[in-house]
Amino acid sequence: MEDCVFCKMVAGEIPVTKVYEDHAVLAFLDIGPVSDGHTLVIPKQHYARIHECDAEVLGQVGACVGKVAGAVVKAMGAEGYNVLCNNGRVAGQVVEHVHFHIIPRMAGDGVFTQWPAYKYPEGRMAVIAENICGSFG
Amino acid sequence: MEDCVFCKMVAGEIPVTKVYEDHAVLAFLDIGPVSDGHTLVIPKQHYARIHECDAEVLGQVGACVGKVAGAVVKAMGAEGYNVLCNNGRVAGQVVEHVHFHIIPRMAGDGVFTQWPAYKYPEGRMAVIAENICGSFG
Repeated sequence: MEDCVFCKMVAGEIPVTKVYEDHAVLAFLDIGPVSDGHTLVIPKQHYARIHECDAEVLGQVGACVGKVAGAVVKAMGAEGYNVLCNNGRVAGQVVEHVHFHIIPRMAGDGVFTQWPAYKYPEGRMAVIAENICGSFG
Repeated sequence: MEDCVFCKMVAGEIPVTKVYEDHAVLAFLDIGPVSDGHTLVIPKQHYARIHECDAEVLGQVGACVGKVAGAVVKAMGAEGYNVLCNNGRVAGQVVEHVHFHIIPRMAGDGVFTQWPAYKYPEGRMAVIAENICGSFG
């Protein structure tokens, strides 16, 4: 897509520090990492959000995230990692082209510490589940 | 796997509030949500970490995350969502069975606000990329 920085990277118009590439997927280092080895995995085809992505393409990206994560973890000696895909500005998405962050983690690194979990009030889960079940396309 | 709470859910031994199921994948509401509609998508087969997951299975889960995210977003009227898979205790993984969180987001919800990005020192990216490229199995 014109004016998409990730499409330009796929097309070779903007340089990337590539770690993996195949016919459908490109993986490269994030230039603004939250931990060393922070890698992005993207479909070559342009989609803004995961739920808009063609299922086959998303499957290829998903499989690739596992493969790349294995290499990132090994190379960085990471004790764990987050795989994160932000969809929409309110969720922290900056580039409007689907991308999975692979973020290597070490004990006590303090990278992400928030997990504001709560409990649903009685009966609320069933209502929500029913709404979701009724919302498949 | 014995003693895995998610395997017990797949086997029907522990009840879940299901929103989607097929031959390879189960999706259900998280009982400790960080936002209303917080959903988990898991492979039925047991794997502890994404990079240990069979590529075909992971592809099926990935494709499914897109489908389920679409329904969650529609049902909740969300403005965006995070898809997150924590791998390892240091990364926040609590249940040792691969699971993708779909977390609906609204403007100003304050659910996740941390993004401690930095810049690499000169030359560091090339060294890291070389190490990752040399670590594919």
